[in-house]
Amino acid sequence: MSPEDRMRHLRAQLEAHRLDAVLITHLPNIRYLCGFTGSAGVLALTDRDATFFTDGRYTEQACVEVRGAKITIRKGKSGMAAALKWLRTRSGIRRIGIESSYLTVAERDVITRSLGSARKIVNAPPRVEEMRMVKSPDEIAKIRAACELGASLFDGLTAGIRPGVPETEVAGQLEFAARKAGVDQMAFPTIIAGGHRSALPHGRASHAPIPPRGFVVCDFGVILSGYCSDMTRTLHVGRPTAEARRVYAAVRDAQQAGLEAVKPCKTVGEVDASARKLLLYNGLARYFTHSTGHGLGLEIHEAPRVAAGQKEVLRPGMVITVEPGVYLPGKWGVRIEDTVVVTETGCEILTNCPKDLQAV
Amino acid sequence: MSPEDRMRHLRAQLEAHRLDAVLITHLPNIRYLCGFTGSAGVLALTDRDATFFTDGRYTEQACVEVRGAKITIRKGKSGMAAALKWLRTRSGIRRIGIESSYLTVAERDVITRSLGSARKIVNAPPRVEEMRMVKSPDEIAKIRAACELGASLFDGLTAGIRPGVPETEVAGQLEFAARKAGVDQMAFPTIIAGGHRSALPHGRASHAPIPPRGFVVCDFGVILSGYCSDMTRTLHVGRPTAEARRVYAAVRDAQQAGLEAVKPCKTVGEVDASARKLLLYNGLARYFTHSTGHGLGLEIHEAPRVAAGQKEVLRPGMVITVEPGVYLPGKWGVRIEDTVVVTETGCEILTNCPKDLQAV
Repeated sequence: MSPEDRMRHLRAQLEAHRLDAVLITHLPNIRYLCGFTGSAGVLALTDRDATFFTDGRYTEQACVEVRGAKITIRKGKSGMAAALKWLRTRSGIRRIGIESSYLTVAERDVITRSLGSARKIVNAPPRVEEMRMVKSPDEIAKIRAACELGASLFDGLTAGIRPGVPETEVAGQLEFAARKAGVDQMAFPTIIAGGHRSALPHGRASHAPIPPRGFVVCDFGVILSGYCSDMTRTLHVGRPTAEARRVYAAVRDAQQAGLEAVKPCKTVGEVDASARKLLLYNGLARYFTHSTGHGLGLEIHEAPRVAAGQKEVLRPGMVITVEPGVYLPGKWGVRIEDTVVVTETGCEILTNCPKDLQAV
Repeated sequence: MSPEDRMRHLRAQLEAHRLDAVLITHLPNIRYLCGFTGSAGVLALTDRDATFFTDGRYTEQACVEVRGAKITIRKGKSGMAAALKWLRTRSGIRRIGIESSYLTVAERDVITRSLGSARKIVNAPPRVEEMRMVKSPDEIAKIRAACELGASLFDGLTAGIRPGVPETEVAGQLEFAARKAGVDQMAFPTIIAGGHRSALPHGRASHAPIPPRGFVVCDFGVILSGYCSDMTRTLHVGRPTAEARRVYAAVRDAQQAGLEAVKPCKTVGEVDASARKLLLYNGLARYFTHSTGHGLGLEIHEAPRVAAGQKEVLRPGMVITVEPGVYLPGKWGVRIEDTVVVTETGCEILTNCPKDLQAV
């Protein structure tokens, strides 16, 4: 679907939701629908038209990027202020949907006060997020390119991991290589967590040096043409102990079980359960303290959540991560993660990169 | 003030706001108050106690970082779910303040549903943001260190700007140098905008090559020990035209006028007006399409906004940016920005770096 088609699809649903208009304020949703990549704006959709409101900083950018919507900029006013002024002049617009998962309480209060009691503000259903869950061939191509670029950085990353080098420097080398390869920016703060820091599931690169011996969790993603990649590999500095090898193998098996559960008609909860079951079997389930994965695309975390009990059914074109981990508090941890696209029969791994225990 | 003192100060104000508790959910506010630097959690303050709720991913990190608050983690539950369960057991807590500028409408709905009609959810006044506006000596030392590190990268940045090099590579070199110097991460997506892209006030580094001749706007910040720096310099590749020199001089004068207006008892609106007045005098005011600056600290944008008509009065210890710019649509643009701390008599520039028109 082109941006115009996406907006048409959404506008056609307004009546069924008894909405006269919907205000799209979440920036990735704005980008998905009309192409604008800047950091401030509001997209107003009615059954008849689409209007994008932004401020003076983005005059030129909006003209270049926005497709399928009229652009309105009011001097000295924010996009929201301009949108509210416009809504006040349209007497036929009574029920207005908002994106309640992104709009703050304070922003909603501003809208309510500005529009008065004759108009009703209601939570719109998350139709854009649902559309975004199943990627178009063009989107899959972009995610594939991001993932291939991400995976291509892995050898350089491995070479940079040496005892005594600060984690931030390892991350910096990786990020510089990513920039030289043309990425827009990293998708999230790079995680390089060595030794006992590998027991922190979210251990952003710190000033700590890579230890002389132990695991190093490397979790990173790039953004290319607006789309994210996400992958984790855990390397070992020096010779791993028998226990380290055993835990690594268990996480590897759990990740494989998760990948094998990814196929159309399965639920994301079943993917989580498959990975978790293997760790349970190995007596490690209680050290797997997060969910198995998440959707990704324009955002690094988007629907669906691949977590216990989640009922979302997998469909071809969905892109998710599969990333079980084991974290032994105060000791060390292991995580292995791939980004995959759901195919007609199973899934295809987009972050192709060795997963056997690698000692550096 | 230590984190404990900050929380005590806040808790002592609850009664005056007729609140039995306040739920702090904005992560920089959580960090400011109790020291936690992770990406999920809720801090609940009552007049009697302080409790921090997070999830299993952060068990170890919370124990290491949190000061002055009891830590509560419930297996398989988010920090918010744990906080709500705790609130339901405390019958004396009837009126609960939320951070309406950060909590989403959907999150508020969850709280309201969970706590039932016997409890009232109200918007808490922005007391933490007000406290954060005036920095402690320790915070100023951290911002100073971040700004000095940022400024120290400038010579390397200048050397990397050569015709034909992609903007992303220039940004990558800068970011790698920042990482090697030990920064946690960049404070925002680095802006390297050459030639006609310099007319975009927010032109993140793109794949475009540095042009053979023209302006290059370089706007970047680092985060060091959690605190941000922010600075912009505009370089010129090749020999500038007379018009380019004239516009550059006008922006330079406007920035100087803005800096000179920064002193205790002046309002931030007066700082904006001083910078704008110089551009008006040079016939360029209509090309200055954004506000003059913003506060910064734990966040790259925080209170106060340095914008037209804003009434916040400057006080010693406040840290703001002064960053006028002129953007000629379709042609090119110039911006000059420093981070400054308000002193007893004026301000001190923290991002010390040449500002004369520099041809590379």
